[in-house]
Amino acid sequence: MAVKKMILDLDTGVDDALALAYALATPDSDLIGIVSSYGNTLVNTAAENSLSLLEVLGATDVPVFVGESHSSTTEDFSTMEISMEIHGRNGVGEVELPKATRAIEKQHAADFIIEAAHRYGEDLIIVPTGPLTNLALAMQKDPTIADLIGNITLMGGALIVPGNVTPYTEANINQDPEAADYVFKHAKHLVMVGLDVTLQTLLTKKETQVWRDLGTKKGQIFADIFDYYIDAYDRLDINHAGAALHDPLAVGVAVDPKLVTLLGVNMQVTHEDGRTIGDPDRLRDPHKTNFAAVEVDVPGYLERFMNYMNIVLG
Amino acid sequence: MAVKKMILDLDTGVDDALALAYALATPDSDLIGIVSSYGNTLVNTAAENSLSLLEVLGATDVPVFVGESHSSTTEDFSTMEISMEIHGRNGVGEVELPKATRAIEKQHAADFIIEAAHRYGEDLIIVPTGPLTNLALAMQKDPTIADLIGNITLMGGALIVPGNVTPYTEANINQDPEAADYVFKHAKHLVMVGLDVTLQTLLTKKETQVWRDLGTKKGQIFADIFDYYIDAYDRLDINHAGAALHDPLAVGVAVDPKLVTLLGVNMQVTHEDGRTIGDPDRLRDPHKTNFAAVEVDVPGYLERFMNYMNIVLG
Repeated sequence: MAVKKMILDLDTGVDDALALAYALATPDSDLIGIVSSYGNTLVNTAAENSLSLLEVLGATDVPVFVGESHSSTTEDFSTMEISMEIHGRNGVGEVELPKATRAIEKQHAADFIIEAAHRYGEDLIIVPTGPLTNLALAMQKDPTIADLIGNITLMGGALIVPGNVTPYTEANINQDPEAADYVFKHAKHLVMVGLDVTLQTLLTKKETQVWRDLGTKKGQIFADIFDYYIDAYDRLDINHAGAALHDPLAVGVAVDPKLVTLLGVNMQVTHEDGRTIGDPDRLRDPHKTNFAAVEVDVPGYLERFMNYMNIVLG
Repeated sequence: MAVKKMILDLDTGVDDALALAYALATPDSDLIGIVSSYGNTLVNTAAENSLSLLEVLGATDVPVFVGESHSSTTEDFSTMEISMEIHGRNGVGEVELPKATRAIEKQHAADFIIEAAHRYGEDLIIVPTGPLTNLALAMQKDPTIADLIGNITLMGGALIVPGNVTPYTEANINQDPEAADYVFKHAKHLVMVGLDVTLQTLLTKKETQVWRDLGTKKGQIFADIFDYYIDAYDRLDINHAGAALHDPLAVGVAVDPKLVTLLGVNMQVTHEDGRTIGDPDRLRDPHKTNFAAVEVDVPGYLERFMNYMNIVLG
């Protein structure tokens, strides 16, 4: 079996930083590029953060592309106040990252996705952990790629639990429901790693202390970034037991779906309220193109996550 | 294994009539009583319909009890216009049923449920196919029964598809969300057979013709009742491919859960919009008391359904 090629689409973002580290550590795929999105922060900040994190982790061979700066239905984007409270004003928990020596690529994110889809096809995994604006744009610009991309595994949505922005919608989907709806309905194979499972995989300061104890600069940086997030979860009454590993769970599932129970259900994203819910028109279609993660092996995932983080931060 | 004892809680209703027939036919449980609810029709009409249907099917040993005439939060109830369009003004597709010789019981539905819970405990299956008002009332009147009743399998709710009254709520749950919330949160073992699966099990006039061809009076009555429903589904643009076997599917799953895929997820019913959705406070609790049917063996169920109907109508 050929090693899969992975593109991350990140709005970097505290948990996006962990997704990036996980993607570098897993032996089950090669990270061939990072696409940037607005969301947890502005698109250019997200791109700079990804580039700096790659430098921190010694992965300066991975290119970073800038994507859309706002949703498909708006003219501009400002980071929401709540996003800044959770991720810090700079997106990475107010931790100052070194400026990367590598430059951001000139190619647009959507064009990079299109090129990779044609080059790798079935072996390509795309993992969006923010809005689906870039991916929808690429799929609309070149409709042939919908049937080429082997696997889209995204962090976003909520099927069997309420949303986190409203009772009906999750933050990533809420940024651009129209783009999400397009991707859900056109993808050949889409796995939704939503709040249904990500709210079950929590990290605490016990784990970040392990990274500190590695005695490395990068261990300390990642512990500082994630502690900010744990503190925000606590301060904002989101969860006092720990902070959710939203984005890195999507990367984990992308390369090993057996970490979760997948329910085949063809979905729609309602434009009016960003709800990810079964599409009645496709309910009785035996051919499923959408799969929702509805259960997760929490201890199994956390063990693997910590093993990978220890490798990449050690 | 002792044969299970079943109580149906019906707002009789076209598909309730089929649930009643299925419950009489299945060898896996004894039907010990039918409780009546408002919903598809008024509570007294529902009770009379159930009694008449039992007479039609020769099951005059099954007692029928009257329950609440309106929801736990309202003062009265009028049948919705849409219910009358789907089920007919008399609840059974405008088919005139013989008046039963047996009388309706004097004991209140809730007291019958309480008595049966103490008598049969783990062996008791309760199948509500309408609002959960009677069951919530019984559980509130005698809180000990929540831990006695072995199995509550209800038709109602929608987890992975939109509702049928609003995008958020299903008709039975919508009648009394507060009662439903109480039952979901207090039941020891509750199986939700919602629109997620019932919209997949459709019946057409091809099948009702089989009942006509049996050459019996009861075969003709049931065919006439269900044809009204099929015509309503078609006329009201609900489904042109056939009419959903909502209520009889719940009875089928109650005695044989292997007909569906069950997802363990502790749920809440939101009071404001009657949504059946995971309860975030109980999401990470490994002990599941609620199970949602999310996939169904359509051909397997339809074959069994037709076998049972042929027995009971032949």
